[in-house]
Amino acid sequence: MWHQQELRLAPRPRGFHLITDEVSSAVSGLRDLSVGLLHLQLLHTSASLTLNENADPDVRHDLDAFLRERIPGDLPYFRHTLEGPDDMPAHVCASLLGTQLTLAVRNGRLSLGTWQGIWLGEHRDHGGARRLIATLQGE
Amino acid sequence: MWHQQELRLAPRPRGFHLITDEVSSAVSGLRDLSVGLLHLQLLHTSASLTLNENADPDVRHDLDAFLRERIPGDLPYFRHTLEGPDDMPAHVCASLLGTQLTLAVRNGRLSLGTWQGIWLGEHRDHGGARRLIATLQGE
Amino acid sequence: MWHQQELRLAPRPRGFHLITDEVSSAVSGLRDLSVGLLHLQLLHTSASLTLNENADPDVRHDLDAFLRERIPGDLPYFRHTLEGPDDMPAHVCASLLGTQLTLAVRNGRLSLGTWQGIWLGEHRDHGGARRLIATLQGE
Repeated sequence: MWHQQELRLAPRPRGFHLITDEVSSAVSGLRDLSVGLLHLQLLHTSASLTLNENADPDVRHDLDAFLRERIPGDLPYFRHTLEGPDDMPAHVCASLLGTQLTLAVRNGRLSLGTWQGIWLGEHRDHGGARRLIATLQGE
Repeated sequence: MWHQQELRLAPRPRGFHLITDEVSSAVSGLRDLSVGLLHLQLLHTSASLTLNENADPDVRHDLDAFLRERIPGDLPYFRHTLEGPDDMPAHVCASLLGTQLTLAVRNGRLSLGTWQGIWLGEHRDHGGARRLIATLQGE
Repeated sequence: MWHQQELRLAPRPRGFHLITDEVSSAVSGLRDLSVGLLHLQLLHTSASLTLNENADPDVRHDLDAFLRERIPGDLPYFRHTLEGPDDMPAHVCASLLGTQLTLAVRNGRLSLGTWQGIWLGEHRDHGGARRLIATLQGE
């Protein structure tokens, strides 16, 4: 069984956002699978997808603060600066964190650890809505 | 053909550990596939999975030393500090390195390069046993 | 439907290189799929695969410049130094950026965003030809 659809995530401020429930409920056919995989791919190069802590929002704050400090936008060797100082750091974050994830599915649900959630990394100041392709397969 | 199981990795000290053989021998059905994919997903947010050098253990030492130096636990803007100074760096490593991997399978074996091995990144001082979901599919 | 093949990428200088067209045209059977996934796995530990901007080459320059500055080869605690000062940084980049990618396929093409392309990260000064396994599945 294959199912593929495009999801649209509403605009969010710069930082990390928990999207586990939004994605799980939007993916058609997830409940019908006993075993399978869900592949998620952002269609952007200045946002990211990653698995991390689903409880304390401070973890999301801290990772964002760390990346802002360690990947500044005004490095003297940066040439891709026309779109503003938040743009090139966003490209760096997209590659360091990744823009696609594959997740185990079992008994109609994502097989996440107790503390795991799906994070959207919004790395632009005004990134707007983000689109992703969800591809579900299994039996 | 789909096969999914949970694996348990014994507790290991902080650092990187080669788990290729342990994972390969534990995954049921791997030998029966002529072509396929093996998906591995840690169920934790303070450890990681990555592909890297399978020979010289100094590579594992050096990556761990680099991450310890560059991602300290006492950054002034870190708020998620209650679980100790090794905790927030572990969350950062989990997202930078990733907690899931998909690996090519051919003729009953993982199709790894000559020098490639699967590394478990244990980023806590006392992380304990780690669980992962292995999902195998192919024909 | 499963299809698996090995691709060989010609030697490239250190830095990031756009390989979307080379990979897409080399993968047999891609045009025949209405929905599916393409998995790419480098067989090396000193190069990387990532999705990022397909237009302005300055983005590729800037990410490479950032990684060269932030991951130098002469750190005092590095032990794996026999193969030269470009080697250990290459291993770090391989794990931070990743060496495998899974990509959505729709209507016989990769479902990439308007600005997304597949980048090969060549992190050695003289890395030589790079091999990867392409595994295609779908219906």
